[in-house]
Amino acid sequence: MSKKGSNEERAVVKLFEERGFGAIRVPASGARTKSDKPDVLAGNGRFYFAVEVKSSKNDYIYIRSEQVEELLNFASAFGAVPLVVAKFTYVPYKVFSPSELNVTKSGKYTIHRDFAKDGIDLVDFIDEKR
Amino acid sequence: MSKKGSNEERAVVKLFEERGFGAIRVPASGARTKSDKPDVLAGNGRFYFAVEVKSSKNDYIYIRSEQVEELLNFASAFGAVPLVVAKFTYVPYKVFSPSELNVTKSGKYTIHRDFAKDGIDLVDFIDEKR
Repeated sequence: MSKKGSNEERAVVKLFEERGFGAIRVPASGARTKSDKPDVLAGNGRFYFAVEVKSSKNDYIYIRSEQVEELLNFASAFGAVPLVVAKFTYVPYKVFSPSELNVTKSGKYTIHRDFAKDGIDLVDFIDEKR
Repeated sequence: MSKKGSNEERAVVKLFEERGFGAIRVPASGARTKSDKPDVLAGNGRFYFAVEVKSSKNDYIYIRSEQVEELLNFASAFGAVPLVVAKFTYVPYKVFSPSELNVTKSGKYTIHRDFAKDGIDLVDFIDEKR
């Protein structure tokens, strides 16, 4: 099962910050107000990213389609590129465009651990945007 | 005394959102991690703002100089314009550039209620950036 982890969100903020970006985590405190916002926002004056962070100890990450829609809507309004960052145990942080992800028959977006392994490392992705 | 109010931060987010911006509040939950981040981030693809929100029921708002420096640093890294939004009771939300503010001998930035009254309404400011 996918789970939302504040440790992973903090780690993503740090990866951006270490590469010169300004980045903030949007804590899931008031769940209602948070629900339509991304987990992390990062920018460096040239690039702006709205990031949904998902992690799993197992083989799959699932993301509700509403959550992806909300990510796309926010990113569009804010003027940011929407990203999904996936963290599987023993796999580095990987970054995907929502449009790259598989969708199940029931409409959930999914990332399999093996699919993630072939993805782009978040660190490399950010390094290219510095 | 100036105080940090989450109600005011939510209201500022709403004022931006009602005018087509994507906006998020950065709750002051983990005070340590929050301290160097602005209260609100807003963007619309053309303009990006990092906002410190301050409110007072009395005549003065005070902002520590470190907090202004942190706002400027974050805004510079993220690629946003730094703003201070002031809310005095019975006065609409007013917006200032940090460089406009008065500084006391002890190095604190101050906004007097009368100074704020002459400032630009946040609503008008946002309307110009739509």
